[in-house]
Amino acid sequence: MTLTRRYKFSASHRLHTPSLTVAENEQLFGKCNNPFGHGHNYVLEVSVRGQIEAHTGRVVNIGDLDGYVQQHVLAPIDHKYMNQDVAAFCDLVPTTENLAVVIDQWLRVGWASSFPNAELSHVRLQETERNYFELRGK
Amino acid sequence: MTLTRRYKFSASHRLHTPSLTVAENEQLFGKCNNPFGHGHNYVLEVSVRGQIEAHTGRVVNIGDLDGYVQQHVLAPIDHKYMNQDVAAFCDLVPTTENLAVVIDQWLRVGWASSFPNAELSHVRLQETERNYFELRGK
Amino acid sequence: MTLTRRYKFSASHRLHTPSLTVAENEQLFGKCNNPFGHGHNYVLEVSVRGQIEAHTGRVVNIGDLDGYVQQHVLAPIDHKYMNQDVAAFCDLVPTTENLAVVIDQWLRVGWASSFPNAELSHVRLQETERNYFELRGK
Amino acid sequence: MTLTRRYKFSASHRLHTPSLTVAENEQLFGKCNNPFGHGHNYVLEVSVRGQIEAHTGRVVNIGDLDGYVQQHVLAPIDHKYMNQDVAAFCDLVPTTENLAVVIDQWLRVGWASSFPNAELSHVRLQETERNYFELRGK
Amino acid sequence: MTLTRRYKFSASHRLHTPSLTVAENEQLFGKCNNPFGHGHNYVLEVSVRGQIEAHTGRVVNIGDLDGYVQQHVLAPIDHKYMNQDVAAFCDLVPTTENLAVVIDQWLRVGWASSFPNAELSHVRLQETERNYFELRGK
Amino acid sequence: MTLTRRYKFSASHRLHTPSLTVAENEQLFGKCNNPFGHGHNYVLEVSVRGQIEAHTGRVVNIGDLDGYVQQHVLAPIDHKYMNQDVAAFCDLVPTTENLAVVIDQWLRVGWASSFPNAELSHVRLQETERNYFELRGK
Repeated sequence: MTLTRRYKFSASHRLHTPSLTVAENEQLFGKCNNPFGHGHNYVLEVSVRGQIEAHTGRVVNIGDLDGYVQQHVLAPIDHKYMNQDVAAFCDLVPTTENLAVVIDQWLRVGWASSFPNAELSHVRLQETERNYFELRGK
Repeated sequence: MTLTRRYKFSASHRLHTPSLTVAENEQLFGKCNNPFGHGHNYVLEVSVRGQIEAHTGRVVNIGDLDGYVQQHVLAPIDHKYMNQDVAAFCDLVPTTENLAVVIDQWLRVGWASSFPNAELSHVRLQETERNYFELRGK
Repeated sequence: MTLTRRYKFSASHRLHTPSLTVAENEQLFGKCNNPFGHGHNYVLEVSVRGQIEAHTGRVVNIGDLDGYVQQHVLAPIDHKYMNQDVAAFCDLVPTTENLAVVIDQWLRVGWASSFPNAELSHVRLQETERNYFELRGK
Repeated sequence: MTLTRRYKFSASHRLHTPSLTVAENEQLFGKCNNPFGHGHNYVLEVSVRGQIEAHTGRVVNIGDLDGYVQQHVLAPIDHKYMNQDVAAFCDLVPTTENLAVVIDQWLRVGWASSFPNAELSHVRLQETERNYFELRGK
Repeated sequence: MTLTRRYKFSASHRLHTPSLTVAENEQLFGKCNNPFGHGHNYVLEVSVRGQIEAHTGRVVNIGDLDGYVQQHVLAPIDHKYMNQDVAAFCDLVPTTENLAVVIDQWLRVGWASSFPNAELSHVRLQETERNYFELRGK
Repeated sequence: MTLTRRYKFSASHRLHTPSLTVAENEQLFGKCNNPFGHGHNYVLEVSVRGQIEAHTGRVVNIGDLDGYVQQHVLAPIDHKYMNQDVAAFCDLVPTTENLAVVIDQWLRVGWASSFPNAELSHVRLQETERNYFELRGK
């Protein structure tokens, strides 16, 4: 049984790689390379796999999951400018691919001690209605 | 090739476990423990895997699938109060996890004789736009 | 300028009019007359009309609006069984039409003193993806 | 007959009013006051009212409308940081209310000469799935 | 009180005006002029305005409305090729503007005798997620 | 890491198998057998799996992917009548199952030379909001 929970946040980013020239950055990232950044409403799906606990009928306590995601993901990213506000993007270009990897890492840090009976199955991150990115554990 | 078909139904439930105290139930289920229940518009996705039949170009006859789901799932649950109207929840707390398991069982009972050439791949049940639950066969 | 804000809640109801016979109720409301009720995920849109305040750039403070709607509408209806939990439906059949009227009345009670510079323009209530109901002031 | 056309763009903003103190800005705008801004996927609806032209069967040529909106609205705002990239927000706080007013003005500048037979009826701007703003002409 | 009910249908059309040349048709309608037509999933919203009837709590009987729309609109248009299957488009180019007008006329023919206490307020027709068309009575 | 990109197109088809009688075709395909065809707005999801390239932060260049899908899939199918305009359906009934297979083949022809570092993971094709079809590579 896999439970998936959706979260929404808004953030901005600029796609720019310091190791490339101005022209290469423009060619590579197009309008996403605009100097002052731009933003999105992201949709994050967190999928948790486990057994249904008999007396609660739940895979995981949803309030606990919401609190965990709020603390580990939404607090550091919601309403932020990734390039400036999020340390992970100090020298990592904040594409949605990389953002998905960073969120997956944030979620895994304290997962096992918080949810000993449920596995973090996968993370899906939607940037716009036109694309989404999915990261699955081994 | 996997074909997925979506069905919608409305039902109500109360999350309450008789083996727990009133206080424990309130603590565990919060507002979902409200004595008279509350309800949702559920979205059920039924996924069927099989070969495309050459002369029809279909994995399964969609009219047959709709009739099967109507009889085995929608008739017993649509516009019902699970705790009172559905025998399976006599002593099983009607969380969406358990509802997904019950629907999966309902679908599997006569599946092989009705659809000998197509496998019931998985069942996904959405309770609100914020969460969904997925059950995959072995 | 009209600002519209969306809120979601889940509730259950039974469509039944005591002044009609059992057979008339069944004929009139069909499966919505099921004795123990059934439920929906409702979407409420509250539309507010006013001037944009120069130094805030807003028609209304959104946090204030959310707090007001939480207190006046969501607290009494979310995760409730209308027929039993909401006094307004003591002798009023809880169709979505009547629910929209009740919510409109709840919103208007303290509106003028809470939001002196913005008018409650209209209320829209969606019961399922197939229908919605709208109530406009004079 | 009113034709409505939807456009999407992504942009970022920071809600901050220079005439207020740091504390007042934080109190007024909350997390939307974050120094480096944040972003959204906006949905713009442009509604045009007119007669159906007999030989084309259209209110307006949709290709012409798309070109006009691209030039007057999307080019200056898509993938931009409003506070820095858009002159109109030099001394105007870029709330979605004000952004709707600015877009409405941009659209009206050359409207009559570009679309002599169709009226710009209204503009609706959605910031997130939780809110939208609508501006109607006289 | 206005009740809006949504209906979906699928149909195909070719945008072509016999009074224009081949080149003019191509220039005017672009890929929508393709000789063999193309298709859409349309969403029709029918809005009905009236008083809430006291003993039913409804503006209109929804089953009756569904039956009326099925007979007057969906039967002649669903899964059809408008240019060939629908008499109204014999010499009328089947743009969505004209389709909305035709549907509005179909709905009004027997409306007053079927629904004496409720007015057909307006009709909205969505062709794709990018555009919709609305027709309001006087 | 899997990146999924969504594309929309409109097309029409008629479900009809020449090897069956008129009556068998009607019985098998119902209203989808209408002689002149009918249409849909399709949603295509193309999923690509690969490593994130360090200096671009991307699995694949999205502009390149869009160009590839435009050329190999959208150009031959968008705004077309499959039965007449698409050679693959000369003697293949254009169900959405078969359309998904055809699109998958179109995508795979030049994939490896265009995207040497990213694998075409799977293709999902939605015909209406009620069903979708998914094809996964081995």
